[in-house]
Amino acid sequence: MPVCLVKAISRFCLFSTLAINQEYIESMQFEVIAQDPKSKARAGKITTPHGEILTPIFMPVGTAGTVKAVHQRELENDIKAQIILGNTYHLYLRPGIELLKKAGGLHRFNGWKRPILTDSGGYQVYSLTENRQITEEGVFFKSHIDGSKHFFTPEKVMDIERAIGADIIMALDECTPYPCDYAYAKQSMEMTHRWLKRCIRRIEETEPLYGYEQTLFPIVQGSVYKDLRQASAEFVAACECDGNAIGGLSVGEPAELMYEMTELVCDLLPKDKPRYLMGVGTPANLLECIALGVDMFDCVMPTRNARNGMLFTTQGIINIRNKKWQEDFSPIDEPLGGYVSTFYSKAYLRHLIMNKEILGAQIASVHNLTFYLWLVNQAREHILAGDFYEWKKQILPIVSQRL
Amino acid sequence: MPVCLVKAISRFCLFSTLAINQEYIESMQFEVIAQDPKSKARAGKITTPHGEILTPIFMPVGTAGTVKAVHQRELENDIKAQIILGNTYHLYLRPGIELLKKAGGLHRFNGWKRPILTDSGGYQVYSLTENRQITEEGVFFKSHIDGSKHFFTPEKVMDIERAIGADIIMALDECTPYPCDYAYAKQSMEMTHRWLKRCIRRIEETEPLYGYEQTLFPIVQGSVYKDLRQASAEFVAACECDGNAIGGLSVGEPAELMYEMTELVCDLLPKDKPRYLMGVGTPANLLECIALGVDMFDCVMPTRNARNGMLFTTQGIINIRNKKWQEDFSPIDEPLGGYVSTFYSKAYLRHLIMNKEILGAQIASVHNLTFYLWLVNQAREHILAGDFYEWKKQILPIVSQRL
Repeated sequence: MPVCLVKAISRFCLFSTLAINQEYIESMQFEVIAQDPKSKARAGKITTPHGEILTPIFMPVGTAGTVKAVHQRELENDIKAQIILGNTYHLYLRPGIELLKKAGGLHRFNGWKRPILTDSGGYQVYSLTENRQITEEGVFFKSHIDGSKHFFTPEKVMDIERAIGADIIMALDECTPYPCDYAYAKQSMEMTHRWLKRCIRRIEETEPLYGYEQTLFPIVQGSVYKDLRQASAEFVAACECDGNAIGGLSVGEPAELMYEMTELVCDLLPKDKPRYLMGVGTPANLLECIALGVDMFDCVMPTRNARNGMLFTTQGIINIRNKKWQEDFSPIDEPLGGYVSTFYSKAYLRHLIMNKEILGAQIASVHNLTFYLWLVNQAREHILAGDFYEWKKQILPIVSQRL
Repeated sequence: MPVCLVKAISRFCLFSTLAINQEYIESMQFEVIAQDPKSKARAGKITTPHGEILTPIFMPVGTAGTVKAVHQRELENDIKAQIILGNTYHLYLRPGIELLKKAGGLHRFNGWKRPILTDSGGYQVYSLTENRQITEEGVFFKSHIDGSKHFFTPEKVMDIERAIGADIIMALDECTPYPCDYAYAKQSMEMTHRWLKRCIRRIEETEPLYGYEQTLFPIVQGSVYKDLRQASAEFVAACECDGNAIGGLSVGEPAELMYEMTELVCDLLPKDKPRYLMGVGTPANLLECIALGVDMFDCVMPTRNARNGMLFTTQGIINIRNKKWQEDFSPIDEPLGGYVSTFYSKAYLRHLIMNKEILGAQIASVHNLTFYLWLVNQAREHILAGDFYEWKKQILPIVSQRL
């Protein structure tokens, strides 16, 4: 019997009341299944304690334990999400870590049985600008809800992510703004590296709480400076974690700079580990970055923009608030298929969004996420078929156009 | 071949492009199937152009063409709604009658294929208090949205309800407040009667727009005065419409007065026509009024209160915002069954409602409506079984208690 299986069984017995449906696995596995001949795109499979993820994948953002306006069964059956995100900053503030521990982790709290990834809170804290102060030890910040004061260290964030219990957990980093001067970017990146070492140490010193392993992803920083991005990618690669992330992009820089940095970093990160580009992006961003070797994406765009009436469809981008859709009784997106996109008309959705009806947010959110998951799945199919490059060239102008 | 069928077929050909799935029927049918031996409760069946309704029934309120926070398929598959309401006042203002006409009526606009009932706008206009003026000719009012000025006459309301295209349409009435002095109640009731005659005339003079008949329900008024209620019920009964409604109750009067008026009116309204008690009520109100012979109910309570965290369950009433539910990881209402009530925990729903997450409104709304439909269906089953009275006595204190 392999050692990991023995260890697995004994831990399984220890936590038998928390047993999960999937076979117990010691840690995340990743396998590259196919490589596109004309780009760096690849199709892969990640195996986690809560099941498989076929890559490239888009991960819907479930901020405070809920993907806004979307039922868990809609995520599973309609959107066909394979993994969702939780935001450590939000979950830490509400419902709070003690409650999540009592629930037995986020999976048990919200009922989502497939994989979950948690960010580190670094991005949200960075967004607070006026209300945070970054030191070598960690980050002081004031809650955006009640102004209460908190302190996140790399160690504390690891403990919080242990308590949330996601399959993939992110290291604490500082996400630099754009533009960012070189000196600050360099010094911040170096601190992020030191924080990474502290995160790794803490994870090694602690055990998961719910009977399955959690996999730490480090984050490459370095703003838009090639030498910094190179140094950071090399540092991160040397840590030999089971997956790696690229942070600090999609913060206002031109798309070309984002692609340049992504390509540079992807080329340096190990080929046999999944690569996760954080907070990206538009359908076009996804396609371009898949071509550069990115395997995983997350972004609030499909849900946040949905609530404002922006729809991503197989025919292009629709602002449903425009008067041109007022009398368009055709389905939202017939070719996409699925309940909301074929059952409800553009005119009806426009009426709901214009009048701030909750159902409008529900329909648009499910639609946009269905489209995003369709897009990455299509990309995967074309990588497997060997014609991803040609397909991307053909579909990119279609899904990017404003209708 | 019966005359109505010939007429039906010729009209069907005329409107063939608007043909609906159901067999064309000339007008609404109602059949009393069973009568409870120890109360006036009865089980029945209403047949409309969009299908059957088993009574007693609760009708979810779909204000502006949407039951707030609930998908149409959830209404059908989870809640098992048989008929929903549309509010004429809201639909007239948004999306507007011209758009509904272009869509081919409300059914086609929102995709709900089963029966719809529209109110007359009388209640909403009455609620505007400061912003309306009632005259013999009709009601002047200012929109609650943009302050624009409008004038509803009985004739205009009938035309609007024709354009919305509900299966059952309500006459324009004045809903008197509580308390209301006798003189005002009498004079208002008499005007409501004159308006009713104008509504009936208009309906007789006009044709439905979408190839199926619409059935007008008159409304009994008379505040809490027995002689007025009696006069109004007799007037309404004499109009020989295919169904009748009781309005002006559940506006602040004690429950006992509401029951007294309901019983008095039910006894005077024809037995072979469905009786609809408007805007009622709590689970207890429904059970008591079913016992008095009411067949149809509508109320915003299950959806509006859901959004504020009040849950009606098989075990009693829950205010999910109470701290006592914070760590209750049991399902919302296991015995009720259904997805939302068994999948999501009380603690998770509390977290969502406390943090104003849209999913909280979604879960609570589907749950409460599922409970309301379950309650009236249970009532029906017990009427059919002949033990409604005993069952009501047993279940009433349970569903009314605060947990």
